[in-house]
Amino acid sequence: MKEKEYSVIGKRVNKVDGLELVTGKAKFAGDLRFPGMLHGYAKRSEIPTGIIKSIDISKALEAPGVHLVFTGENIPGPNLIGILPPFDQTLLAKDRVRYAGESVAFVVAETKNQAKNGASQITLEIEPTKPVLSLDEALDPASPKIHPDGNVTFSRNLIKGDVDLGFAEADVIVEGVYETSYQEHAYIEPEAVCVVPGGDGRITIYASCQSPFHLRGHIAANLGQPASKVRVVQTYTGGSFGGKDDVAVEIGALAALAAVKLGRPVMVNHDREESIIGSNLRHPSRIKYKTGAKKDGTLVAKQVEILLDGGAYASESPFVTMKALIHAAGPYRIPNVHIKSTALYTNKTYSGAFRGFGVPQVTFASESQMDELAAKLGMDPVELRKKNALLPGDSNATGQVFKESVGILDTLQVIEREREKLKEFKGDDHYLYGTGISSMLQGISNGAEGIDVVGASVQMSQDGSVLVGIGLTELGQGSRTVFAQITAEVLGVPLEKVTVKTVDTDSVHDSGPTVASRSTTVGGKAVLTAAEAVKESLVTMAGLMFNSPGAPIVLKDNFAILEASPEARIPLDQVATAAYWTGFPLMNLTFSKAPPSNYDHDTHQGDIYVAYNYGTHLMQIRIDRITGEVTVLRHLACHDVGKVINPKGLEGQVEGGSLIGFGLAHMEKIVHSPEGRIINSNFADYAVPTIKDRIPTEVVSIEKPTSNGPFGAKGVGEPPVAGTASAFANAVSAALGKRVKKLPVTKEDILILLSEREKK
Amino acid sequence: MKEKEYSVIGKRVNKVDGLELVTGKAKFAGDLRFPGMLHGYAKRSEIPTGIIKSIDISKALEAPGVHLVFTGENIPGPNLIGILPPFDQTLLAKDRVRYAGESVAFVVAETKNQAKNGASQITLEIEPTKPVLSLDEALDPASPKIHPDGNVTFSRNLIKGDVDLGFAEADVIVEGVYETSYQEHAYIEPEAVCVVPGGDGRITIYASCQSPFHLRGHIAANLGQPASKVRVVQTYTGGSFGGKDDVAVEIGALAALAAVKLGRPVMVNHDREESIIGSNLRHPSRIKYKTGAKKDGTLVAKQVEILLDGGAYASESPFVTMKALIHAAGPYRIPNVHIKSTALYTNKTYSGAFRGFGVPQVTFASESQMDELAAKLGMDPVELRKKNALLPGDSNATGQVFKESVGILDTLQVIEREREKLKEFKGDDHYLYGTGISSMLQGISNGAEGIDVVGASVQMSQDGSVLVGIGLTELGQGSRTVFAQITAEVLGVPLEKVTVKTVDTDSVHDSGPTVASRSTTVGGKAVLTAAEAVKESLVTMAGLMFNSPGAPIVLKDNFAILEASPEARIPLDQVATAAYWTGFPLMNLTFSKAPPSNYDHDTHQGDIYVAYNYGTHLMQIRIDRITGEVTVLRHLACHDVGKVINPKGLEGQVEGGSLIGFGLAHMEKIVHSPEGRIINSNFADYAVPTIKDRIPTEVVSIEKPTSNGPFGAKGVGEPPVAGTASAFANAVSAALGKRVKKLPVTKEDILILLSEREKK
Repeated sequence: MKEKEYSVIGKRVNKVDGLELVTGKAKFAGDLRFPGMLHGYAKRSEIPTGIIKSIDISKALEAPGVHLVFTGENIPGPNLIGILPPFDQTLLAKDRVRYAGESVAFVVAETKNQAKNGASQITLEIEPTKPVLSLDEALDPASPKIHPDGNVTFSRNLIKGDVDLGFAEADVIVEGVYETSYQEHAYIEPEAVCVVPGGDGRITIYASCQSPFHLRGHIAANLGQPASKVRVVQTYTGGSFGGKDDVAVEIGALAALAAVKLGRPVMVNHDREESIIGSNLRHPSRIKYKTGAKKDGTLVAKQVEILLDGGAYASESPFVTMKALIHAAGPYRIPNVHIKSTALYTNKTYSGAFRGFGVPQVTFASESQMDELAAKLGMDPVELRKKNALLPGDSNATGQVFKESVGILDTLQVIEREREKLKEFKGDDHYLYGTGISSMLQGISNGAEGIDVVGASVQMSQDGSVLVGIGLTELGQGSRTVFAQITAEVLGVPLEKVTVKTVDTDSVHDSGPTVASRSTTVGGKAVLTAAEAVKESLVTMAGLMFNSPGAPIVLKDNFAILEASPEARIPLDQVATAAYWTGFPLMNLTFSKAPPSNYDHDTHQGDIYVAYNYGTHLMQIRIDRITGEVTVLRHLACHDVGKVINPKGLEGQVEGGSLIGFGLAHMEKIVHSPEGRIINSNFADYAVPTIKDRIPTEVVSIEKPTSNGPFGAKGVGEPPVAGTASAFANAVSAALGKRVKKLPVTKEDILILLSEREKK
Repeated sequence: MKEKEYSVIGKRVNKVDGLELVTGKAKFAGDLRFPGMLHGYAKRSEIPTGIIKSIDISKALEAPGVHLVFTGENIPGPNLIGILPPFDQTLLAKDRVRYAGESVAFVVAETKNQAKNGASQITLEIEPTKPVLSLDEALDPASPKIHPDGNVTFSRNLIKGDVDLGFAEADVIVEGVYETSYQEHAYIEPEAVCVVPGGDGRITIYASCQSPFHLRGHIAANLGQPASKVRVVQTYTGGSFGGKDDVAVEIGALAALAAVKLGRPVMVNHDREESIIGSNLRHPSRIKYKTGAKKDGTLVAKQVEILLDGGAYASESPFVTMKALIHAAGPYRIPNVHIKSTALYTNKTYSGAFRGFGVPQVTFASESQMDELAAKLGMDPVELRKKNALLPGDSNATGQVFKESVGILDTLQVIEREREKLKEFKGDDHYLYGTGISSMLQGISNGAEGIDVVGASVQMSQDGSVLVGIGLTELGQGSRTVFAQITAEVLGVPLEKVTVKTVDTDSVHDSGPTVASRSTTVGGKAVLTAAEAVKESLVTMAGLMFNSPGAPIVLKDNFAILEASPEARIPLDQVATAAYWTGFPLMNLTFSKAPPSNYDHDTHQGDIYVAYNYGTHLMQIRIDRITGEVTVLRHLACHDVGKVINPKGLEGQVEGGSLIGFGLAHMEKIVHSPEGRIINSNFADYAVPTIKDRIPTEVVSIEKPTSNGPFGAKGVGEPPVAGTASAFANAVSAALGKRVKKLPVTKEDILILLSEREKK
């Protein structure tokens, strides 16, 4: 079948919001200024856990510039935040604190410095109790209970086939324990909100945020107001990666309470330290894996136990636990699987959503096992993966069968071919060389984890220009550009004629959170549907104008064109104007819902996501034996993305995700003091990849379209994180001749591993 | 049939936005402040017409605080404004000026005073030409042409039956010429806009305005930008009455041009003088009427020639001309009608939309004729009107037949009954007494005059609170309250749970202008439809929750109630939350369109409006023979409104409209100098009714529901103006025993008429 010729889809276009971003014209929440605006600052606990005896705010109230100080006692609503049930997190800690950095009071003053100074005048009397700081301590029945029901946040079992029978059939078994650490989102823009009370009794929250509808609901609840009185407008957002969900709710609610109380705009603008200690991190993990295979490499059984350190509050731990559970078996056909995934409470900054969402952790462990298995079987690692790669029609770990859009084998074939082209290096006294591959899959959409709905609107004006609204946020990932392309393609207008708004909760259906790499697929489908409704009006009108009602009409290049005689063309603005005055709708607001699933939440069997992104990464590295420094010589990221909407945007997503994966695998380490305080809450002490650390990622796309995405497209935001981290770990293991079982494996760790190896 | 019991509809509720208005919390456009905001001021022509020789802005540019000065030469777009074709009005006059007060240059400075001072430094060289200042001058072929095609703005003929045959059959004929004068809208808040350029290349226009979509289109065009780059947000608007349509476009476009050029917010905030000389007024009219009837009072023919003084530009003259044309025959069954309606250009401030929209002018003339005819026939004026009053099934002047909702006879019956209860007064040396009645009709909706579309959205949050969006503006008329009531009724929630936003062009379908008393009827229907879509989700979800899918369910008092067993009830917030998580849409955006019409624009025969409001007014007055002072002793306004949504709001509308009618009939007079300049552009010299002049309007409603309105409701915004003005004129005529042929008939005019009478 010849592929349809697209005008805008698949073209290398610049980000539609690129110009204002690079010229500095784009306003971020922290850039906003309103007359009479005040600044808020949270007083935080310095110890990880203890009973609040008293909070004396009297001196703070008299500090210069201070207008308001309040504590958990003064909140009209339930004083609860948190993304999902269990809503176990206080907005301001009341009876006890559960992590070092938790907010206990809020100070509002003329300037941030005055607010900070005010906060320093608060006398906080907390009686320390014994903190729970590790997974083992959390599991110990003798440890204190962080929450009334104990220290298990969430735990689930996925059971497919009979794993004991499976292992009984296995010729070879490998086992291991793998660990990953914290990771900080480290977006360029720390969290910020600005809340403006309106003259109409409503308030507007301008927020750097990921999920505006979460903000609306939680902020309204804490204000004790109906949600209809709260409007959330997303400002330009300088990255989120999962990080601006919980914390935007927290600072949004605090600022809103103050703004309503004082009748003045209130800004909260985090500095880097607040951003690191006061917002969620990636879940550290300890994962026990056992994989069984036949002699020929056929996988027969996989047993996995995942422990995730969720920190002091649930946040998105339940979803991350699920995501790890569902992805732990990898992109393979395995008849017998038992996976247990558990998140635990500890007295540390809470863990939550972070690009990849549990998948990088399990992929690292799973792909390490695949390499170990290949070694034990004496098989080529690519061959082993190819042998077990899911094919269309196969049943995956949850028993879901995709008849289309399963491109994992294709990615392996690409990587196999590219591996042959790698330069061969021989190690010497100075350098070690290694090549690693990893395969992975990542579910696209919320799927059966929640509800997958998106609202979108497409509005054409009489001049033919188009305004698109959607409930999903642009966080730098380029989704405004994707939505603009989809709209432009459907309506036959150039990209410049399409404007995509940032989210305004007033104007679109609650679309849930912008997570799970679902923007292009689920959001894009919503935009497509809305654009097609407007197209229908234009086509109907043009049919009347051509005096050929119902005749096939193409919208292209700003014209309505009669398909039967393409020289008959009417400019689209004329068609739009006529459609308006004839009474055909030029705006449509769509409510789009993912197809129904039949998922069983007990066994975790059934259809869960609308599609999966599949990928295989290849990485060749060089290790400096003297310094431990790693140079990535080649990195190839090959993903089945369904259909590429914007090659440029896709490359940006894969490069960015890869660098986060590289940071996770090699550089980033949150360090706690023995008492449980984060002690490297700044970019001098916390190493995040900068432009200097950029790895030479090459992007190859496989296009196996899904009918659940617009033009067949699947998301690609998260997958490269897992692929890169795992390929890096496997490459380092190959170079060292020694299995890396813990991430990050930093330069220092490599030197230690090297010296251990040499000792042997 | 027993009437349905409503929870909210028909109840006396306070305005939903009343509290913020009376407490001063509501922000009007002129209250807005943004960092870096500048102020704009227009330099205006002081002479009515002439050729612009030069505009020297050099000194102005150097005046203190001035940032920008521009003229018509500097406008990227077409430099055209105007509501409708012909777009004959320049944004800034370029080659010539056509009225005294026309803007020729725009100055932007730090403060309004600096801008004003800057404007005073502009040297304007205009070579005066002979102005056309009256209808007769405009008609004179020897007069200069104000526009290239001459001095006729718009002219139409309505022809029904054969008027010559009709008069041939008549036993009695009355003839007369009637005149009305200018009227200023005199809203409490003069026009204001504040334009804020965004970091995303879009601009937001915060405007006190009546038709945000007009602003969007015209401002974008003059900026040379696509409409999708312009967002218009209506601020609280302190009255409009038709006046904030053109002028908001004008000042919005000027401020937008400056804001884009300077990259800073720009405010234009008119003072009263600018508001009077620089925005449209009500069309003065001269109307020739001829009415023929049989001896028994049966009307057989009506011939009318209407001349409207449209001023320098078309503005809404075409529509006002049409409206006058269609309504000139009154609410009567007349087989033969010929009406000619013409608007003319003159070199005065342009005339445009004003509450009533041509109907008060023709009603005054028509109802004067009815009284004259009654006198000539020796019939009671009520009897004559009753005899000819339209009944359901009758064909009106445009040949439209309504099978329902024709309540004119009912209003006459009420008035007849009430007239009997009037105290009888005998005139004496000090006082004269008179009673007047008038009947009228007013088309509801844009109808076939244009296109009647409205967009509305209803969004329920998971907590059961509701946000309503609509493309029609709240101008003080109480439509937000009506929309809130409709939504609350449909969704079974208390009124407090419903918030109605002001208009934001980004979030709703282009709904055209807020005119023609169409908000409740056409807008309300859109809100009703959107609310019903949300209701469907709730009812479906509740059916599942009751384990009775499809069973009849009532939404009431915040509960979903199983009709079959009303003790089974689930709180609506629980239903909404469940609906969200099950994937039933909780938001709907509706595009609502009036039923198609079959109107013939040549003969003006056919179906034009979705409904008519019918009314009869009764007024008893006392005239002080010494001072000419008129005291209204009783005023009864009886209208067929279809269904009363909010009795309080309706009373407010009728009282307010009546006072405008009273001002038109008795108090308000724009005075021009012989050169053609308005010389009483302030409230000291232009007498507008104040609270002291309030007349004791009593409101009686007839409810003859229309299926084209929500719950049967018809609009009532405009009709009382015509009813009151005409009843007043007839009452004064009765008291004086002399026909008033010109409005306003002020105290001074009454003294003159009295002295003329006494001279005889």
